[in-house]
Amino acid sequence: MTELETAMGMIIDVFARYSGAEGNKQSLTKGELKALMEKELPGFLQSGRDKDTVDKLLKDLDANGDAEVDFNEFIVFVAALTSACHKYFQA
Amino acid sequence: MTELETAMGMIIDVFARYSGAEGNKQSLTKGELKALMEKELPGFLQSGRDKDTVDKLLKDLDANGDAEVDFNEFIVFVAALTSACHKYFQA
Repeated sequence: MTELETAMGMIIDVFARYSGAEGNKQSLTKGELKALMEKELPGFLQSGRDKDTVDKLLKDLDANGDAEVDFNEFIVFVAALTSACHKYFQA
Repeated sequence: MTELETAMGMIIDVFARYSGAEGNKQSLTKGELKALMEKELPGFLQSGRDKDTVDKLLKDLDANGDAEVDFNEFIVFVAALTSACHKYFQA
């Protein structure tokens, strides 16, 4: 596998590791999203002091309004975050 | 770094490795896009037999019409491709 293919596979693996914990195995419940954010993106929740951060994030990401985050909704978030990181390191 | 952070960093690194080769260091020229596709996503170009694949891809990805692919345009492509891979492995 190339580096880019490996990175894509890692994102799929991370999502599956958390989405499989409870309920629909193909999407993240609020609890699964919280666990993923706390363990995989610890800096993200810390930067927002608001206790409702996970609730707000779920609402923002949940494009189809089913109160869960599916892979398509998740990858849009990862892409936006990666783009923000890229911009940050360019400055 | 967590697995998700590592994957995001790898995508940023891959883009920079190719975008820095010629012209604007922050975006992929057609030649750089071709090199990236051939080395990082070898299966993608093979599946399209059309010789104009790179031209068509550049046109598709170049949202701002400057004839190059910047990081924001690239990450949208990576996200769409990752989503397609995820769907494929689910089926």
